[in-house]
Amino acid sequence: MNPTKSQTEKKEKSVKQPAVIPPTSEATPRVVIEKVSPEVDRGRFPAKRAVGERVVVEADIFADGHDSLSAVLLFRKEGTPSWTEIPMEPLVNDRWRGEFSVTEIGRYQYTLEGWIDRFQSWRRDLSKKVETNQDVSTDLSTGAGLVEKAGERAPDRDAKALKTTAAELRNPKAERVRIALGEELFQLMKRNPDRTGAVRYEKELTVVVDREKARFNAWYELFPRSCADGKRHGTFKDCEARLPYLAEMGFNVLYFPPIHPIGTAHRKGKNNATKCTPKDPGSPWAIGGKEGGHKAIHPELGTLEDFRALVAKAKDYGMEVALDLAYQCSPDHPYVKEHPEWFWHRPDGTIRHAENPPKKYEDIYPLNFETSDREGLWKEMKSIVLFWIEQGVRIFRVDNPHTKPFLFWEWLIAEIKRDHPDVILLSEAFTRPKVMVRLAKIGFTQSYTYFAWRNAKWELTDYFTELTQSEVREFFRPSLWPNTPDILTEYLQWGGRPAFAIRFILAATLGASYGIYGPAFELCENRPLEPGKEEYLDSEKYEIKKWDLSRAESIKETIVRVNRIRKQNPALQLDWNLRFHPIGNDQLIAYSKCTRDLSNCIVVVVNLDPHHTQSGWLELPLDQLGLDPSQSYQMHDLLTDAKYLWNGPRNYVELNPHLMPAHLFRIRHKVKTEYDFDYFL
Amino acid sequence: MNPTKSQTEKKEKSVKQPAVIPPTSEATPRVVIEKVSPEVDRGRFPAKRAVGERVVVEADIFADGHDSLSAVLLFRKEGTPSWTEIPMEPLVNDRWRGEFSVTEIGRYQYTLEGWIDRFQSWRRDLSKKVETNQDVSTDLSTGAGLVEKAGERAPDRDAKALKTTAAELRNPKAERVRIALGEELFQLMKRNPDRTGAVRYEKELTVVVDREKARFNAWYELFPRSCADGKRHGTFKDCEARLPYLAEMGFNVLYFPPIHPIGTAHRKGKNNATKCTPKDPGSPWAIGGKEGGHKAIHPELGTLEDFRALVAKAKDYGMEVALDLAYQCSPDHPYVKEHPEWFWHRPDGTIRHAENPPKKYEDIYPLNFETSDREGLWKEMKSIVLFWIEQGVRIFRVDNPHTKPFLFWEWLIAEIKRDHPDVILLSEAFTRPKVMVRLAKIGFTQSYTYFAWRNAKWELTDYFTELTQSEVREFFRPSLWPNTPDILTEYLQWGGRPAFAIRFILAATLGASYGIYGPAFELCENRPLEPGKEEYLDSEKYEIKKWDLSRAESIKETIVRVNRIRKQNPALQLDWNLRFHPIGNDQLIAYSKCTRDLSNCIVVVVNLDPHHTQSGWLELPLDQLGLDPSQSYQMHDLLTDAKYLWNGPRNYVELNPHLMPAHLFRIRHKVKTEYDFDYFL
Repeated sequence: MNPTKSQTEKKEKSVKQPAVIPPTSEATPRVVIEKVSPEVDRGRFPAKRAVGERVVVEADIFADGHDSLSAVLLFRKEGTPSWTEIPMEPLVNDRWRGEFSVTEIGRYQYTLEGWIDRFQSWRRDLSKKVETNQDVSTDLSTGAGLVEKAGERAPDRDAKALKTTAAELRNPKAERVRIALGEELFQLMKRNPDRTGAVRYEKELTVVVDREKARFNAWYELFPRSCADGKRHGTFKDCEARLPYLAEMGFNVLYFPPIHPIGTAHRKGKNNATKCTPKDPGSPWAIGGKEGGHKAIHPELGTLEDFRALVAKAKDYGMEVALDLAYQCSPDHPYVKEHPEWFWHRPDGTIRHAENPPKKYEDIYPLNFETSDREGLWKEMKSIVLFWIEQGVRIFRVDNPHTKPFLFWEWLIAEIKRDHPDVILLSEAFTRPKVMVRLAKIGFTQSYTYFAWRNAKWELTDYFTELTQSEVREFFRPSLWPNTPDILTEYLQWGGRPAFAIRFILAATLGASYGIYGPAFELCENRPLEPGKEEYLDSEKYEIKKWDLSRAESIKETIVRVNRIRKQNPALQLDWNLRFHPIGNDQLIAYSKCTRDLSNCIVVVVNLDPHHTQSGWLELPLDQLGLDPSQSYQMHDLLTDAKYLWNGPRNYVELNPHLMPAHLFRIRHKVKTEYDFDYFL
Repeated sequence: MNPTKSQTEKKEKSVKQPAVIPPTSEATPRVVIEKVSPEVDRGRFPAKRAVGERVVVEADIFADGHDSLSAVLLFRKEGTPSWTEIPMEPLVNDRWRGEFSVTEIGRYQYTLEGWIDRFQSWRRDLSKKVETNQDVSTDLSTGAGLVEKAGERAPDRDAKALKTTAAELRNPKAERVRIALGEELFQLMKRNPDRTGAVRYEKELTVVVDREKARFNAWYELFPRSCADGKRHGTFKDCEARLPYLAEMGFNVLYFPPIHPIGTAHRKGKNNATKCTPKDPGSPWAIGGKEGGHKAIHPELGTLEDFRALVAKAKDYGMEVALDLAYQCSPDHPYVKEHPEWFWHRPDGTIRHAENPPKKYEDIYPLNFETSDREGLWKEMKSIVLFWIEQGVRIFRVDNPHTKPFLFWEWLIAEIKRDHPDVILLSEAFTRPKVMVRLAKIGFTQSYTYFAWRNAKWELTDYFTELTQSEVREFFRPSLWPNTPDILTEYLQWGGRPAFAIRFILAATLGASYGIYGPAFELCENRPLEPGKEEYLDSEKYEIKKWDLSRAESIKETIVRVNRIRKQNPALQLDWNLRFHPIGNDQLIAYSKCTRDLSNCIVVVVNLDPHHTQSGWLELPLDQLGLDPSQSYQMHDLLTDAKYLWNGPRNYVELNPHLMPAHLFRIRHKVKTEYDFDYFL
């Protein structure tokens, strides 16, 4: 009956300690620092950033009474002994802001400090008294004392100036008021503040900094066994031949489903049949056979050397290979014999297969992460990641992480990233919202989303406003997948080729990170196992497929163009800059993304109706896009290279999904006029 | 340069501890409990309730995987060793709710516990398998094991039944599925859950429970020296004669500005003049003279015995006497000589008077709460409160608390309430929003608000929605004052007698707590010191006033009626039940308050225009008010006793401010029809 307290949660029971009278040796702490942002769950979890991004820190900072305050933001790379200080600026209503940039992969700490600024308070009051012609001789004497003390703590350079100024403030013949309120003294005192009684925020907060690919990437999921030209089992060598095709399309992560030996016990046949024929290759997620487990390679794919060669070759094409981390076993996995205690047992002693009633997965044994041998199991799981890191892999797509304990992932990811901070882990959790969010908090670099099922305009608007504008963006990096081997949405089943183009353009422009399962996706494969189901007919999970990459309906050219546009336009490499705009037609969705300096502004309009032409009047907030309402501007459609001259905030848009279901405009701010002719100069 | 850390803030630096593999002896903690409500600033501050109120606790509770969870809310009165458990109910999206009632003054703790409910998970899965006709014999055996174990930990009463049931589940001849899924076993297992691996929320949260008057009260501020009939200095005896008048109006807190000796040095004259005549009585806030300080009584008011007699007499009339805690001194206060170190000194050694540049308060010395003798000063301040508690006072209005350190108040209030939990402290802080909120967090029972300056409909709607519907309501109890001796708003200056009635009805119905400064208020005194200023002309702060209580323009009768209605209608004794309703006219404001069971529903409509008749169509959400849209209902105006028969959600309202600027309807749900005649029975 005794509850086990989470070991990762600090025992905060006595958060409230009785207030006591501060001893004479200490100043009374009067400054309050609260509502700090970013601060994930009271600092329990770090915020996330990628190299080169900014951390904008805000807080409520205030004190009793009417004194002026000053505050600084402190930050440091983890392991660096000293803090760098950044002055914070007051906004309105006791809110303050400061920011720093993160330039290296790893972990940074930050905190805040605020203090009563006696000089600023004095200066402000003096100014008011001077304005109402009050006698200020006593005030000048008080100020001289403050300046003198600053002189005592200042470096030599300032010390002399401060001492001189203090003397002047005491000299009735000097222009004392002008000196007291002057800019020179203001700056001197700002450089040498009296921070007695300064209050440091009670926590040091953390931000995890990943490499840029954690934020900006394009994944391509590929079954290597289907890479051969014929019906034979594809190999890593065959995959090499596919690289030019993938590189041309512009993908930079090549993700393989599990590449390990596949079990034969209860192997599934075509279309998930419970019986299989000797020819059926089985699901790659039924990991482990007599040839080995999670650290082995399925013999028909090739050798470890072949795999390493493929990793290197992919790199030459600008692609990183990502592997699948699926912590589960086929009944033939060596673990089953070596460590039966790592599995779930029925009352009769047999090992329980996976199930999610009424569904059964007889070819898979789930691991019991609560086994009495947690030490053994968890460390073995870690060794799998380290093994593949040694083979050159730095990106992992993690299969169903929500079916393993949070604590396991938190431990594993911390262990891995301590020595390999460049590792990226993508959480494949299609589950309840709070569980998905939790997995992101405990360390997953990126997360699958509900994007596949967000089709209507209001669904997309609500969901992406939440993902990009609410607090979850501090730690949850969305990865947008229009399809996966398990998910062929009804929208794709019914919408034909335009539906694929629509969903692709949405994924690649709503999100800086996205992925597709190909070649099924670009070839517009849309036959479901049966009506109303999301499984593919003749799913590649259970058979070797021969894909005709030259199919007429391929949307490859659109992919090529969109990925090129993403690379050339930094606004599309960000998530938080997404803003939706009204267009007066529920079948059209419009949004923009701009860089902070507005030098790169992209406006996207997508026709969500894969069948009919739709039109509407787009309303753009010209001021937010850096446009002068009195000037024309050019909208350059980067998909078609068409150029439109627009005027004012409202302009007409019409999209035929069978030609091209979207505009991907770059705003060209300057439209030439007669003033641009030479003779006007 | 070393920052002083707040002593009351727990040093939470290492909030994030590395995740470790749980030892074999412990279950893996899989349940997450977060986003608990109420929880003020991570539990740093308590929530507040009054006796008889409910504490509705919600939290996100979830775990990895697909298991069913159970959760309980635990609470106890502080000092009670054992917790009382309340089962929590799941809402949607992993949100859970439980509640308890607080029945005694003092402090309660509460926390939460959740666990993986293996029996519920098993039962749910079994049910799904049965539905799809799967073989469940192994499952029944697994279930038998769970039931057996429950039998081992159950009390005798249940143990036998559990053992019997386990045996039945193992008996192929029994109706095993029916038993397994039956209600009897469900209840048995619910009473005897397996809480292995239960996770207790990491904090014990606190709720401070005050007496009911902390929430529901009507204050009357009165200068006792103006209670005499003629021009002579009024006494406590004179105040006794005023009690029937106040009791008739229905007030239950009688608040006196400071009753202590008044200094003569720099005493202010009429209308805050810097020079005074020997006849001028001075401001009561210039506390302290040769007759004593904060524990003495101004001799002209009477003796301590007179004061105690008045307190007792007021009690007979249903009123509690509240005193002013103004921690500041006149230059003649005994502290100035006894403890010069408690004050602020100029460079020349003289003591600094109060100022808020360009304003000066030469008759007042502020205390320096950061004095090196904090121990001495703070304890002396505490002794003042204890002294008046001994004289029978339990309510204090605290003057300008925002000009003293937060830590001082947190310490003082904790010290006082430890032994006197029935003490009520009203924070008179008219300052920046976050400072006002902080004072409420650190312990003030009630708080002055910006009500006086919220006149327009949108201002009232926004402000009271924030106060009654946002998280601040957990600790900030608003007290609504249409006027104070320092605040005669422009609305009152310009709006004549109707303005006073309007502001009174708003204060007394928008808030469960309100107060007026009288007799200035009920007599509609509205002459400002000068146009554009909020000070009263011939302010009572600086002179003895003779008020003619029988003035024709007195709104006494309205006050009598409204306070009687407040007493008779529990819906008006609450704050959180406030809901605004559309009425299609910006000069009319409409809102309702209902008790939880809808047995008492009040609808208020106020004409905010003190000059003209206004009309509009009120739209009521009939379902939320417990009204059947197909039935007529009676609106009984409790102010005028008029009765209206209304139909449907939209009804016409018209208010002439010169007659009565408001309706104060009680909804009578039942309107008689022919079915009510005897012969229908």
